[in-house]
Amino acid sequence: MKISLLLTGSELMSGDTVDSNSAYIAQSLKDINLVPYVKKVVGDDLTLLVDSIQELSKVSDVLVVNGGLGPTVDDLTSLALSKAVESPLVRNADAYAKLAEWADRRGFVITESNLKQVNLPKVCEIIDNPRGSAVGFRCIFNECLILCTPGVPSEFKPMVENHLLPLICEHGAIEAKSHITRLRVFGITESGLQDTVNEVFPNWPANVELGFRVQMPVIEVKFTTIGDELVELNQLWANKFRTHFSDYVIGVDGIRLTQALNQALHEKGLVITTAESCTGGLIASGITSEAGSSKVFEAGYVVYSNKIKESMLGVSKQTLIDHGAVSEEVVRELVIGAIEKSGADIGLAISGIAGPDGGTAEKPVGTVWMAWGRAGAIKARRFFFPVARLAFQKTASAIAMDLVRREVLGLSTEVDYFSELKKKRSRA
Amino acid sequence: MKISLLLTGSELMSGDTVDSNSAYIAQSLKDINLVPYVKKVVGDDLTLLVDSIQELSKVSDVLVVNGGLGPTVDDLTSLALSKAVESPLVRNADAYAKLAEWADRRGFVITESNLKQVNLPKVCEIIDNPRGSAVGFRCIFNECLILCTPGVPSEFKPMVENHLLPLICEHGAIEAKSHITRLRVFGITESGLQDTVNEVFPNWPANVELGFRVQMPVIEVKFTTIGDELVELNQLWANKFRTHFSDYVIGVDGIRLTQALNQALHEKGLVITTAESCTGGLIASGITSEAGSSKVFEAGYVVYSNKIKESMLGVSKQTLIDHGAVSEEVVRELVIGAIEKSGADIGLAISGIAGPDGGTAEKPVGTVWMAWGRAGAIKARRFFFPVARLAFQKTASAIAMDLVRREVLGLSTEVDYFSELKKKRSRA
Repeated sequence: MKISLLLTGSELMSGDTVDSNSAYIAQSLKDINLVPYVKKVVGDDLTLLVDSIQELSKVSDVLVVNGGLGPTVDDLTSLALSKAVESPLVRNADAYAKLAEWADRRGFVITESNLKQVNLPKVCEIIDNPRGSAVGFRCIFNECLILCTPGVPSEFKPMVENHLLPLICEHGAIEAKSHITRLRVFGITESGLQDTVNEVFPNWPANVELGFRVQMPVIEVKFTTIGDELVELNQLWANKFRTHFSDYVIGVDGIRLTQALNQALHEKGLVITTAESCTGGLIASGITSEAGSSKVFEAGYVVYSNKIKESMLGVSKQTLIDHGAVSEEVVRELVIGAIEKSGADIGLAISGIAGPDGGTAEKPVGTVWMAWGRAGAIKARRFFFPVARLAFQKTASAIAMDLVRREVLGLSTEVDYFSELKKKRSRA
Repeated sequence: MKISLLLTGSELMSGDTVDSNSAYIAQSLKDINLVPYVKKVVGDDLTLLVDSIQELSKVSDVLVVNGGLGPTVDDLTSLALSKAVESPLVRNADAYAKLAEWADRRGFVITESNLKQVNLPKVCEIIDNPRGSAVGFRCIFNECLILCTPGVPSEFKPMVENHLLPLICEHGAIEAKSHITRLRVFGITESGLQDTVNEVFPNWPANVELGFRVQMPVIEVKFTTIGDELVELNQLWANKFRTHFSDYVIGVDGIRLTQALNQALHEKGLVITTAESCTGGLIASGITSEAGSSKVFEAGYVVYSNKIKESMLGVSKQTLIDHGAVSEEVVRELVIGAIEKSGADIGLAISGIAGPDGGTAEKPVGTVWMAWGRAGAIKARRFFFPVARLAFQKTASAIAMDLVRREVLGLSTEVDYFSELKKKRSRA
């Protein structure tokens, strides 16, 4: 079966936007053992769009058109499809109903621009889009299934799994025969994983395809086999992998690091508190981004200045003078202060130099101290992430959350994040 | 002049690699006022490559082929070009000399695989590649300049500036200059902007191209004109736009909302504090994501539970009982408590129901109260964002930050976010 992609949008041609949708759908198509045949990208040019739809529909069994569904004049997909398949634009009742419902839920009045989004080629049926005002739509032309989809990634991606794959399978009479196990790993790089697998499992079977996909800050590891007879082999090798990488595996399927931390705390019946300097609330907002976080989180302190470290959490002036804000002593006092003030079971404190300014020879930009644990059993570690400010904040937050996840689950917190292989080799 | 791109490589089709080369060359082409016309991506498939080269060379003045120059069997570009332009593969003397020099400098022996890289269509001349073993090559076919280039970004990118742009300019005898003005807007949707422009500026000149690009949570508005003689017209219409949308414009070029807020606070010499319930630290982390934020931010409070709202910021138990945590009374007490405790000049408090649970008939999921201002001059507003948890947190945070930006700059905070048109129409 040949599946082609037609992406439209002047922002893709001008280089202002890097297309991630086509990589996303390509990864998803692997689940039904398909690789896209041709991908074509064109600007908001009606003639080109019409010609491209006609041309690609002739050489493909499925054509996914992505983008150009919006309300503005440069959104041309429905018009182009109408011309390409010679079916007039009419107000689609289902699309209108969805739009009305969408507007109603938000208290919006439907505008002229919105109405444009429900004028579809008569021959089309809609594809539901729970995330936005523009539905997708589809028709068959030249025996090719044409699927028109929104360009906004947050709307496109859920549509792939929920609607596009089933429609493609139905059209091609494909039964998805591949079996996939998904694990998520934190704390090792992609090449670290690959090198270790090569070293530890030299006889990894060719029929258990191993794939890695970076989903910052975690890596998704995918084990794919084709055919029911290989399901057990899939499980066997996924388990071998999981056993070897043990503590680095935070869970299965689409689990997030914040979710893994919430789950660990919830499982052990613990409430956490945070005292953040350099991450400025990023850890607290990560924990509370998860539904149900009120069971494990009540209070967070953003203590950005020294004055506030003293007044809010009782860090002593002398400690600040003697050791500086980025020090083991200060993060220990911060975490103890936060636990005392909030009454939480466990605390996490972080203080570092996010940059671009504020570094010294002894404590350069990228230096960070973390302290965590229960009152009376606080641990602390120093790290160094000499990267740009945002990357520093994200990396430090993620590692801090993983340390607490490990602490709560009784796993080692001595882990050498992102460089365990290098160390192993230099010891060898 | 029409310039098209043909990218080849199975890794691009499988989604394992996200193509960044085409965005790079598109950005560079802006300097000579060109936007790519068509981009096509195909796997390592000889027939498809031959057909695509022939097809695209017919409709384009320049065709950049990217990828497939490597030494392995799946690198097919020279073979495909040879078939497409019907010119036999021969050992190219210049290519061989470059290869010999490259191998010599590295102490490498030239292999069979390397030799494959110097067999080029007879009609071709080489394009120098100082970064790798595979030179680029070019020819003219169907009056189209065909440029074959390496897929490795570190080899491709220097080739663009050093060789491709000069060759393209020479072929098209071009010199031309586009002028671009960029503004960033917050608080109106893309369709709201488009509808308003249609209504307010019915005579918008066709030679001042207006473009919108969503860069959550803001929208970038781009005004493009071609040629030095239109620079003033560009400025004139950009200014008309800016005057009409006034307070919604947060700044120029790539300004972020968090940056606009930091700048406004810094300009007025104010320090802000935050008291966050439903956003769990997202606002504090937004402010502190900007370099230099320590000048405008010292303390943030994440008050997730009622107990903590009382103990940390002194909200009265009675207020919580009488009005509930999501109420004007509670956010007012929160912001006053935060200003008092921290000694900040201005405060921002937020309390809402992010969901998925916790809603009631009176206060459904999506309800949120915000309070902001200086002690003695606190304002409060209620909003309703009935969207998924993460979208709720992001939207509420962005609007809260914009309200403070407006307050600090002395602009109206009565703005009807994302729906001012609806209201105007329903009043009309």
